Amino acid sequence: MIIDIHGHYTTAPPALEAWRNRQIAGIADRAMAPSVSELRIGDDELRESIAGNQLGKMKERGIDLTIFSPRASFMAHHIGDFNTSATWAAINNELCHRVSRLFPDHFIGAAMLPQSPGADPASCIPELERCVKEYGFVAVNLNPDPSGGHWTSPPLTDRHWYPVYEKMVEYGIPAMIHVSTSCNACFHTTGAHYINADTTAFMQCLSGDLFKDFPTLKFVIPHGGGAAPYHWGRYRGLAQEMKKPLLRDHLLNNIFFDTCVYHQPGIDLLTRVIPVENVLFASEMIGAVRGIDPETGHHYDDTKRYIDAANLSGEQRHRIYEGNARRVYSRLDAALAAKGL
Amino acid sequence: MIIDIHGHYTTAPPALEAWRNRQIAGIADRAMAPSVSELRIGDDELRESIAGNQLGKMKERGIDLTIFSPRASFMAHHIGDFNTSATWAAINNELCHRVSRLFPDHFIGAAMLPQSPGADPASCIPELERCVKEYGFVAVNLNPDPSGGHWTSPPLTDRHWYPVYEKMVEYGIPAMIHVSTSCNACFHTTGAHYINADTTAFMQCLSGDLFKDFPTLKFVIPHGGGAAPYHWGRYRGLAQEMKKPLLRDHLLNNIFFDTCVYHQPGIDLLTRVIPVENVLFASEMIGAVRGIDPETGHHYDDTKRYIDAANLSGEQRHRIYEGNARRVYSRLDAALAAKGL
Repeated sequence: MIIDIHGHYTTAPPALEAWRNRQIAGIADRAMAPSVSELRIGDDELRESIAGNQLGKMKERGIDLTIFSPRASFMAHHIGDFNTSATWAAINNELCHRVSRLFPDHFIGAAMLPQSPGADPASCIPELERCVKEYGFVAVNLNPDPSGGHWTSPPLTDRHWYPVYEKMVEYGIPAMIHVSTSCNACFHTTGAHYINADTTAFMQCLSGDLFKDFPTLKFVIPHGGGAAPYHWGRYRGLAQEMKKPLLRDHLLNNIFFDTCVYHQPGIDLLTRVIPVENVLFASEMIGAVRGIDPETGHHYDDTKRYIDAANLSGEQRHRIYEGNARRVYSRLDAALAAKGL
Repeated sequence: MIIDIHGHYTTAPPALEAWRNRQIAGIADRAMAPSVSELRIGDDELRESIAGNQLGKMKERGIDLTIFSPRASFMAHHIGDFNTSATWAAINNELCHRVSRLFPDHFIGAAMLPQSPGADPASCIPELERCVKEYGFVAVNLNPDPSGGHWTSPPLTDRHWYPVYEKMVEYGIPAMIHVSTSCNACFHTTGAHYINADTTAFMQCLSGDLFKDFPTLKFVIPHGGGAAPYHWGRYRGLAQEMKKPLLRDHLLNNIFFDTCVYHQPGIDLLTRVIPVENVLFASEMIGAVRGIDPETGHHYDDTKRYIDAANLSGEQRHRIYEGNARRVYSRLDAALAAKGL
């Protein structure tokens, strides 16, 4: 089985964005604010938005199952306040849940959280619980910078975040550390902010001792870990200067990297540097980079081709495609086992 | 000849830091502010601070010449105002100049600029001119984020920065795009802020058309280009979606990467992905990572070993060690030619 641990609902019917635009307009002018019930998207629309897009490409590429979460750049936690985000998160999570019910063999949910700059992360727990208990979601996306590029929250190692971690550990769900759109003109969303956030999150964990407090907490750092694998020598050296254990002991029981790296040399580096048990297959399809690479004739985000061409044994490839995902996402494993898979 | 294009004066005599601490205290209480003449560092102290440190390691490793600039993390442009930075930059540039006169075969200067958050970059030009005309410096370090991790300046493609670019083009000097210390708790200085800034600067240039306005402007992106080479497929794909030319045409006549990547797989990726004419040898020794790698028994920052072991021809290695530096740093080439080198 091939599991893509990183897919977003980037192809939702246009009614969703129209509703969001009205919600945003309603922040300044409450008369403009829509009610949740005004958003109506039928099952046929949902099916159509998936079948010709993510599911079509999954079938083309041989991907069986995607861990599916709301569109990352649309989370935009910096907009409005906690109530804005709570309503918006609930809508998006429900849509992902409906997709997973329409295509139960191919999609399983991961939740966006109703984060808001300055709000206590504990305020996210009711939505997290709802998604796990009612929807059977297997993970959350945690935004380390709900300000959208101004980085006003404490580092991930700060106790500020602990209420979320306690709940994650209780439920046995990992968090993908994933920012949303940048509202800082310095940072292009998918070209700088995403990658920087990955690097930043990794270095926050390296500098701290979070996993002493939470030995079973699991973070997935997307986009191939940002810059971390490419600069692995720098990070090993920095850990050494800080008198931390070897990275393998200090971080790699808890931190995992996905394979959203869109060319062969990047995947070759990732699989050469990072222990195979810490690498999880993903493509973030349909996402930031949708084109066809003229150098290969294939989609940039068809990351399965790079894994297939990498210098890996069949057993290693199996771990990247399935085994690691089932280990890290224990509720996914349980859901599959319940189906006899 | 082997030229290291990225060295900082990280080993200055302690009197320098003591003076800086008094300068910082003087921002709140002018009675504490020292005069420049109170900083006295003799030539013997300078010689000693270099001979047993940078120069010793250069001789051990076979590096002939270093382009030498003030300690990056100590620039701290966010402290005080323009006058604070102007005094501090002048002191540091003069010290690098003195080092280059004491060891003229081994060091040549690159200037820090007296940047300050909110100040017009044009205010840096007198110091830039002084360093080029009086000191024979061959480059500048340009900080894209003088706020120190809050990213309050416009992107490098904004006209805000054009006065500096005009002067760089006039003098034929490149800029290394190099941030200073982070005063944002989210960003570890050398583990996150430096690498993020490299990625950010690259993406700013990708998104814009700066080099249409300045076809001969040259930027060196340090630390192996941040995350850019590792995610080169992502960047090629993003450029394609933005209808930009191929990266080679869009950016690689103007943007160069150094080799401050502290392990063999990283250097192998860099030299595999980036055209050899865009890669310049550097180690940033003595810098962020000073230890010995237990996996190799050699210093992490002994990057010459990685270049020597990379899959490169002698001619390619020569470009990385010398040829590219002489092409990009045209005043360095002229200074060497004047010595018959």
